[in-house]
Amino acid sequence: MPDTLIDAIQLRYACREFAADTPVSADELASVLEAGRLAPSAFGLEPWRFVVVTDEAGRAAVARACYDQPATTTAAALIVIAALVAVLEPDSDYVRARFAAEARGQDAEPIHAAYRSFYHAGSMAEWARGQCNFAAAQMLLQAAHRGLGSCPVGGYDASALAAAAALQPGEVPALVVALGRCRHAAPERIRKPLG
Amino acid sequence: MPDTLIDAIQLRYACREFAADTPVSADELASVLEAGRLAPSAFGLEPWRFVVVTDEAGRAAVARACYDQPATTTAAALIVIAALVAVLEPDSDYVRARFAAEARGQDAEPIHAAYRSFYHAGSMAEWARGQCNFAAAQMLLQAAHRGLGSCPVGGYDASALAAAAALQPGEVPALVVALGRCRHAAPERIRKPLG
Repeated sequence: MPDTLIDAIQLRYACREFAADTPVSADELASVLEAGRLAPSAFGLEPWRFVVVTDEAGRAAVARACYDQPATTTAAALIVIAALVAVLEPDSDYVRARFAAEARGQDAEPIHAAYRSFYHAGSMAEWARGQCNFAAAQMLLQAAHRGLGSCPVGGYDASALAAAAALQPGEVPALVVALGRCRHAAPERIRKPLG
Repeated sequence: MPDTLIDAIQLRYACREFAADTPVSADELASVLEAGRLAPSAFGLEPWRFVVVTDEAGRAAVARACYDQPATTTAAALIVIAALVAVLEPDSDYVRARFAAEARGQDAEPIHAAYRSFYHAGSMAEWARGQCNFAAAQMLLQAAHRGLGSCPVGGYDASALAAAAALQPGEVPALVVALGRCRHAAPERIRKPLG
């Protein structure tokens, strides 16, 4: 288990293929989900839902929606991060509940007013998908911290993935987080320099 | 310093006001930037640039672009994360260089072909801004790990912020990460439950 955050950051890489028959434990999965749950989000809206898929038929359906990329066909668990879009309408019950919580007993109207100015119906889907990357980033690091391999998968047929993960109307797929034990060692890390 | 990743995740919260005259050290700032640099991104495109603002006049200009929100007027350092948009055009030198690196000596054409299918000029700005959240998430956690307070700031006048951070044409602001020593204790954590 890595000792420091930078160790987890260094350990994390996109695993393209997982070793067969090496399950992810319920405890590991719960810790990854909790890391995602605690992620920050703009306006405290947490515009995400995590759909955990571990059964064989479910994983196959999700993998198919991801064009059977090996990371998805070999993963022990797949977390489909759904972006919540329809509920982001400023007067929805969801938004009201989030802002009431965020206000911590104070007046929620200032944050609500700021959000009404921000909200543009046409662009909220992509915005919400981007917010889901906060949750995904914390999940990927937590997986590395627990010694799991992971792969963020953004290439999929959105309709097929929504069906495979039984998303609700108004939810759109953001990212699939594939988890397992990586079959290969980490490749050389490639990053551009700062600046 | 927190011992585990979940400690850093638990420690991180949006600090709305920093204590005056408590600078962020060069080493702390470098470690936060490095955490951002190592973040994952779709297609390995790393569509971001980090603009560090620590001088008083620069911070004031960035803060003004953020409507003088206290987190920005009191921060010791502000990192403006710029989303790279214009260079995401599939045949740009930037994209060719990233894919050549990502291919690690192998043929870069398969990833390039996948990216050409994915690319839609009209939606790349918001997509790139969403990718920047991967870098931001790692920065925020690294700040917490180093004992720094932080606040992600997404409310700003985009034109004013681009000017204050001297962004180039084709770059758009994604997020400002404000850093310092938080003036107040963490508020009660508010999160919706899983599921």
